[in-house]
Amino acid sequence: MQAEIVSIGNELLNGRKVNTNASFMAALLAGIGIPIGRVTTCSDSMNEIGSVLEDALCRADYVLVTGGLGPTSDDRTKKAVAKLLHKGITFDAGAYDNLMSRMERLGRELSHSMHDQATVIEGSTVIPNTKGTAAGMIIGCGPRFGNHTLVLMPGVPAEMKAMMELTVAPYLSKLVSTAIAHTQLRTVGIGESTLADLIGEIEGSLPEGSELAYLPHTAGVDLMVSTRGSSRETVDRENREIADAILQRAGRFVYTIGAKSFEETIGELLLSAGKTIAVAESCTGGLIASRLTDVPGSSGYFLQGFVVYSNRAKENSLGVPKELIERHGSVSEEVARAMALGCLEKSGADYAVSTTGIAGPSGGSSEKPVGMICLGLARRGSREVQSKTLYMHGDRAVNKFRFSQAALRELWEIMKPPQE
Amino acid sequence: MQAEIVSIGNELLNGRKVNTNASFMAALLAGIGIPIGRVTTCSDSMNEIGSVLEDALCRADYVLVTGGLGPTSDDRTKKAVAKLLHKGITFDAGAYDNLMSRMERLGRELSHSMHDQATVIEGSTVIPNTKGTAAGMIIGCGPRFGNHTLVLMPGVPAEMKAMMELTVAPYLSKLVSTAIAHTQLRTVGIGESTLADLIGEIEGSLPEGSELAYLPHTAGVDLMVSTRGSSRETVDRENREIADAILQRAGRFVYTIGAKSFEETIGELLLSAGKTIAVAESCTGGLIASRLTDVPGSSGYFLQGFVVYSNRAKENSLGVPKELIERHGSVSEEVARAMALGCLEKSGADYAVSTTGIAGPSGGSSEKPVGMICLGLARRGSREVQSKTLYMHGDRAVNKFRFSQAALRELWEIMKPPQE
Repeated sequence: MQAEIVSIGNELLNGRKVNTNASFMAALLAGIGIPIGRVTTCSDSMNEIGSVLEDALCRADYVLVTGGLGPTSDDRTKKAVAKLLHKGITFDAGAYDNLMSRMERLGRELSHSMHDQATVIEGSTVIPNTKGTAAGMIIGCGPRFGNHTLVLMPGVPAEMKAMMELTVAPYLSKLVSTAIAHTQLRTVGIGESTLADLIGEIEGSLPEGSELAYLPHTAGVDLMVSTRGSSRETVDRENREIADAILQRAGRFVYTIGAKSFEETIGELLLSAGKTIAVAESCTGGLIASRLTDVPGSSGYFLQGFVVYSNRAKENSLGVPKELIERHGSVSEEVARAMALGCLEKSGADYAVSTTGIAGPSGGSSEKPVGMICLGLARRGSREVQSKTLYMHGDRAVNKFRFSQAALRELWEIMKPPQE
Repeated sequence: MQAEIVSIGNELLNGRKVNTNASFMAALLAGIGIPIGRVTTCSDSMNEIGSVLEDALCRADYVLVTGGLGPTSDDRTKKAVAKLLHKGITFDAGAYDNLMSRMERLGRELSHSMHDQATVIEGSTVIPNTKGTAAGMIIGCGPRFGNHTLVLMPGVPAEMKAMMELTVAPYLSKLVSTAIAHTQLRTVGIGESTLADLIGEIEGSLPEGSELAYLPHTAGVDLMVSTRGSSRETVDRENREIADAILQRAGRFVYTIGAKSFEETIGELLLSAGKTIAVAESCTGGLIASRLTDVPGSSGYFLQGFVVYSNRAKENSLGVPKELIERHGSVSEEVARAMALGCLEKSGADYAVSTTGIAGPSGGSSEKPVGMICLGLARRGSREVQSKTLYMHGDRAVNKFRFSQAALRELWEIMKPPQE
């Protein structure tokens, strides 16, 4: 079984938008053992859509399409498909109900241009849209196209993702007979090449059917171990053995086995230890607090954050002594420690993490360059406050994220379960 | 003149890599007036490469290809092109010199697998590689392919970008006689379909050569007006006239003409008014502070943020009366107003924005559902504190972002320049 992806939209052809939808769908399908043969991106033109879909349907069993289902006049996918397959467009009661209940919740009238959102290709199975108004569709294309199947979804990433996860992937995975196993190991505090040196031997002797992929991102490297084969049992065993071998060599850098984010991992450690946290941020500007509170249920351990950008805020809100700032500068381990300590006291939390540094692009000096960060970590019941200075080499956004990761890593290092 | 992009590489088909190369190239070509008809992504297989390139060369005057020029065995682009065009592969002295001087600088020997890096398709013009070893090529494909042209580049982004900027774009721009103009209008506080209703008439009567695209994202819709034609003057005038017509009808929702972000726009308004801001966040958890401090130079107007997740933090850090929380609940306009006022006083800022709400997925009730947010806005010198309640319908991440956008929008509404 093979699938292709067709991405529709002028914004993908003029460079205004990166096609992240295609890679999301490809990764999800790879996970259930369906390879993607091609990805074709075409414009909103009726003719182009028709011609691209016709070619793709001749080659692939399943063609997954995103884009062109919205309410505006440049949304032409439905019309192009109806024309290609010689099918009508009909009103769908389920899609209409979804549309109306969304409008009601938003307290809006159904505008004229929205009416189309409740119509679908004749004979299609509707994919419910839990995040928006456009209905998705699964359409059998008949003997003219080798009984291949077309899947239409909106181009809005959140809508497409929900459809893929809730409907399309479960539907497709039932059709696949290959056994497949994946283990994701997420690391922090080690670069791609150092990690490759550490586990290179494992990579060199992978059994047939297994793959090891490095997925580096802004603040860490994820490893994905994939194994395919005909026997469920063998596939699972081989996959587990590779993951175990990696853990033995690089386990101290692995914060989770699975998809959990670093902030979720830390949240769970805090919850299970019954501890609370507060943060004092200068250069990270609220990003650590925002990342921690991205996790549902974070109110169970996150008490508060102080974003103390100005020196006055550091003094007034956290009691950092003015003399300390004058003597050492606001970017210094001394100030980082005083921030952590003040944060611990003011918040009543068990742990307090602090950041002060220079995210850039300006504000650096030869002594304190852009990318420099001082971190502090204070804990209740201990008079000792940890601190550390690190140097990053990204742009402002990358530095901010790496700063936040480094600060959270300090906490993780003292909370993580001991290695066997 | 039309171009197509072909991206070669298995890593683009299994979701491990997002195709950012294609959007970079498309944006660069759009800037010099060359539209991209399609982007096709295919695997490393010889047959696939041959078949995709054959099709693309039949349609497009220029086919820009990335990937498959490296030294390893899965790099097959050169072989596939030689086969397709019935051409040989020859040694190139210039490519060899570049290769050797790079190896010397790195202090490395020329390994066996690297020898291929100095060979090119017979009769091609070599594109110098200033960032790596693989030579790029411009190849005339002869009458069999309508004298269309193939441009081969490596898939490594830095190498491709340097080739595009230094050689390919200058070469192509000489061939173009089209003038092109773009105007981006970024909106906030209006949905795609309402906006379409508002400006539908303009859309329906666009002059030949002009296009209007809607680019919706999590918290707003961007509009892109594009105009192409042969006369620079006409193109610029028509483009401006369309943008003006949109501004006349929907100008009150447009926060910028250009690429600026909402937080940058607000930063500039604060800077030019000589005003400062502080924020008090509950449900947005630091996201507003983080967005504001994403802007370089934000220390010029952003003083501090209070992330007051717990009720105790709201009381202790902002002086919100305990009784007020008990009487109205922490998610209430009363508490939002008290937070804004407390934030203004503690920070000494000119403006204070506050948020308290329910991001979800849990914590909602029938009276106060998930997605409900109360906003507060206090300003120095005014005893009146604005407040407002809104309802969003996304998941936790989407709600958090829309909450932050709504809060910033309150500030923008009172600071934005008056409409003509």
